[in-house]
Amino acid sequence: MSDIEIAQKNEEEEMLPVRQIAEKIGLQDSDIELYGDYKAKVKLAALKNRSVPKNHKLILVTSINPTPAGEGKSTVTIGLGDALNQLNKQTIIALREPSLGPVMGIKGGATGGGYAQVVPMEDINLHFTGDMHALTSANNTLAALIDNHIQQGNELDIDQRRISWKRALDINDRALRNVVIGLGGPFQGVPREDGFNITVASELMAILCLATSITDLKQRIAKIVIGYTHKKQPVTVADLKVQGAIAMLLKDALKPNLVQTLEHTPTFIHGGPFANIAHGCNSILATTAALKLADYTVTEAGFGADLGAEKFLDIKVPKLGKHPDAVVIVATVRALKYNGGTALSDLQTENIQALEQGFVNLKRHIQNMQQYGLPVTVSINEFVSDTPAEIKRLQELCHELGVTAVETKVWADGSKGGLTLAKAVLASLEQPVTYHALYDNNSAITDKVATIVKKIYGGDGVEYDTKALRQIKTFTENGWDKLPVCMAKTQYSFTDDPKKLGAPEHFKIHIREFVPDLGAGFIVALTGNVLTMPGLPKKPAALNMDISEDGVITGLF
Amino acid sequence: MSDIEIAQKNEEEEMLPVRQIAEKIGLQDSDIELYGDYKAKVKLAALKNRSVPKNHKLILVTSINPTPAGEGKSTVTIGLGDALNQLNKQTIIALREPSLGPVMGIKGGATGGGYAQVVPMEDINLHFTGDMHALTSANNTLAALIDNHIQQGNELDIDQRRISWKRALDINDRALRNVVIGLGGPFQGVPREDGFNITVASELMAILCLATSITDLKQRIAKIVIGYTHKKQPVTVADLKVQGAIAMLLKDALKPNLVQTLEHTPTFIHGGPFANIAHGCNSILATTAALKLADYTVTEAGFGADLGAEKFLDIKVPKLGKHPDAVVIVATVRALKYNGGTALSDLQTENIQALEQGFVNLKRHIQNMQQYGLPVTVSINEFVSDTPAEIKRLQELCHELGVTAVETKVWADGSKGGLTLAKAVLASLEQPVTYHALYDNNSAITDKVATIVKKIYGGDGVEYDTKALRQIKTFTENGWDKLPVCMAKTQYSFTDDPKKLGAPEHFKIHIREFVPDLGAGFIVALTGNVLTMPGLPKKPAALNMDISEDGVITGLF
Repeated sequence: MSDIEIAQKNEEEEMLPVRQIAEKIGLQDSDIELYGDYKAKVKLAALKNRSVPKNHKLILVTSINPTPAGEGKSTVTIGLGDALNQLNKQTIIALREPSLGPVMGIKGGATGGGYAQVVPMEDINLHFTGDMHALTSANNTLAALIDNHIQQGNELDIDQRRISWKRALDINDRALRNVVIGLGGPFQGVPREDGFNITVASELMAILCLATSITDLKQRIAKIVIGYTHKKQPVTVADLKVQGAIAMLLKDALKPNLVQTLEHTPTFIHGGPFANIAHGCNSILATTAALKLADYTVTEAGFGADLGAEKFLDIKVPKLGKHPDAVVIVATVRALKYNGGTALSDLQTENIQALEQGFVNLKRHIQNMQQYGLPVTVSINEFVSDTPAEIKRLQELCHELGVTAVETKVWADGSKGGLTLAKAVLASLEQPVTYHALYDNNSAITDKVATIVKKIYGGDGVEYDTKALRQIKTFTENGWDKLPVCMAKTQYSFTDDPKKLGAPEHFKIHIREFVPDLGAGFIVALTGNVLTMPGLPKKPAALNMDISEDGVITGLF
Repeated sequence: MSDIEIAQKNEEEEMLPVRQIAEKIGLQDSDIELYGDYKAKVKLAALKNRSVPKNHKLILVTSINPTPAGEGKSTVTIGLGDALNQLNKQTIIALREPSLGPVMGIKGGATGGGYAQVVPMEDINLHFTGDMHALTSANNTLAALIDNHIQQGNELDIDQRRISWKRALDINDRALRNVVIGLGGPFQGVPREDGFNITVASELMAILCLATSITDLKQRIAKIVIGYTHKKQPVTVADLKVQGAIAMLLKDALKPNLVQTLEHTPTFIHGGPFANIAHGCNSILATTAALKLADYTVTEAGFGADLGAEKFLDIKVPKLGKHPDAVVIVATVRALKYNGGTALSDLQTENIQALEQGFVNLKRHIQNMQQYGLPVTVSINEFVSDTPAEIKRLQELCHELGVTAVETKVWADGSKGGLTLAKAVLASLEQPVTYHALYDNNSAITDKVATIVKKIYGGDGVEYDTKALRQIKTFTENGWDKLPVCMAKTQYSFTDDPKKLGAPEHFKIHIREFVPDLGAGFIVALTGNVLTMPGLPKKPAALNMDISEDGVITGLF
């Protein structure tokens, strides 16, 4: 059965009303707002007066660098949460929201797989509770207000060649990456170059995920730099005086969404900033809700540990006020062999040597997480082609680093397939944690970048374009240099070249430009050619999608 | 108190859970999907096996040509529904959904006013249940699939200079009216001219409002003409094979939304196509739901009766399978004096002569509705500046046409201020109805246009541009000529010149182009310069909007 068939069978037969899921974690009817019977938003007021239980354990799931072979990080996250509940450890899962663009493109759904899924999968993958749409609206309302300001006299003297605020759609649409707008004469706006991001790459998404209240949201929005004046002075949303209107458009989107897994584990799915251009974690409010309402929280960070986990630890943790107590790194035999040089078509053949060669990728991620003082467990997400010899060898290699690696079969078996992992994680939670940050925000921008490149990526150093060097000077003068650095890098490699797999050495990271995301509260360092608007493939998933008169969806995955 | 203050006071103190509203009209918990406590969608299955009571009365509210003086059609529609319920006539109101673009621009809210409002007004005016956002997504997913098809080899031989499917946003954004997309080189799409409509002007909105089931929705989407091949053959969504995916994105948007008035009258608010470029009525499914679940339905059509009501009667009624039993035309003394030549700043001064001069506008609308064989009542929507002499004179003038005109004070007094109107409408329902269509769909395109121009607008005839004449030929060859014609005309005048107020005579309507909206099932005739993407004013309403830490919104109206 396909993922959607498994989900639909369960949805029909076994899904619990979300009110019951809420009740399980101590939320009453008055604490939630229903979106149909199986989705709810949690009112912020319901969370305000609760505190995090002293012994709450936060588990972060991350992975090796993603490959076309597939890793299954969300699936493992969900299966681990289910398994912990199965072991009577009261657990909530906290995930990111899928973006509709990739769903229509190559990916199909993004809600786990097999018997480790969140439901109702169709709704979550499509419009869910409208958070993405609210962000798109807010992003584009701001853009329209900027162009209208210029059209109506440009009191703030905004330089239309230096507007950094782009428009956004939650669609994979390469034709909107570079556009010219305002054509058609004096009544149709001021012509200028512009472009569209996918909504999850909007700074507003990062802000939504880092905000702790409506007031904080509004203050962050006010700080967004939308461009520069002709005198090269930054122009902010506060200058335009529309932070109230933009925050108003996000009032519901700010509330965490509650759903369930196939096994009824309460799951918050909320926010989903890109992990290359932004920090790649679900919202502070959702993670905090999970921390407050259970004894264990299982959450994930985007892409590989070099991007998602690093940003979770260096950008999200300081705002969250709680560091993970354990880390799970997801790897597959297939993906490691791919990292070891095996072609996609040969991955089903046993190949211990390729596995050993590709293991260097996992090894560096393990050591990186250990560097933060965190206990690590490796989840070997099972594929049918894995051989016992390959699994055994991988476990040995991990063991040499002092790390337990366990096979996980949650795709095929649900929580039952995750019990070994859950037990290994619980054991790792007994280890002493000596968490410490990677860098000090008060150090220079160049020092922060160098630390990430050397200690996480394993590179030798950093090369800056002239523009980037000039920006470091300006940012420091503007007092923007005390913010954490959010690296915008390819997810496929430790380097800025997506083709360099494994664990490359003796390389430099090339930074061409910085972007001040003052609302989000970090400085983005652009390396290589990071796309913020994906395209559709030759045969988009949309071609296979359909809906019947009874509303039954097919082809979503 | 402002509209939003009245609404908020009521929302806090008196709003009933929408489940109780549903129960009032015979819908059970299992028939609806809650969106919070005060909004719900009605499942299509819940409506399928019900039929329209034999004596059900459908009341259509329309108005004179809109003026900057304000008419208050929605307010009267809501107040009339409340008043009918007050008289123990079981009534449901069926309205259109507000578009977010105008809300952020000049208009503030669009949910009635004073004590004749629908609530929760903030939610309805902002994201509501996400219908607009689903339409925006569906519209732009289709656009991305078209450009991707061309980028990936263009198997269908689509001519990128002849793509008629535009992108859309629910934003007032003049800078997006004319754009160039696909810039940046061979990996960023194929460069071409494009433009954005406001979402309510998308053909998908018209389709959503005319579809009677998911299957019908999908069939209509399949028929959309997205552009032409290099050989000038039409390309449809069916050719692209994505009608399933696009219909899937609209599965929830298709379900009617249920809310309530300040006085708890059940109200469906669903769909809202532009009444200039499209047919300007709420959805067939929502109107049908109202017809099935009550004894009286009060609904409205967009702009003046020359646009909204004409299209309601000639485009919607044949699909609805039920014609109105009575028509209410909303007018104000102020707006009539404005039509009579009085400047905006002088409208508060008594001026019987200007009233008499401007009455010609109302007169033509009255006669137009009588022409369809429908009984007419005029609602004089009260303003504080109206004098007893003006009201009396207006009543006399209407009386001369055999029409009752009653003062309506629903803004100030709610249902109490609408009882006289309700009684007059009930009396009009006793009159014999001899409803007949304006034109025969089987007649030639030019005949249908000429009939509308002569019989509704009062013009002498029609002038066609060469392009339009060529299109008439092609459309007829393609077999598209049997569809009703949807006139895209300024709402401010019976003519195609927005400055010609009153009831102009001896004019021609100039048609420059036709658009085949085969999915919606009509042919749009473009007259003059009809904007399908509004702009923002110098001081957008957004500047005054704010939200407090407790989520209380200010400045929405």
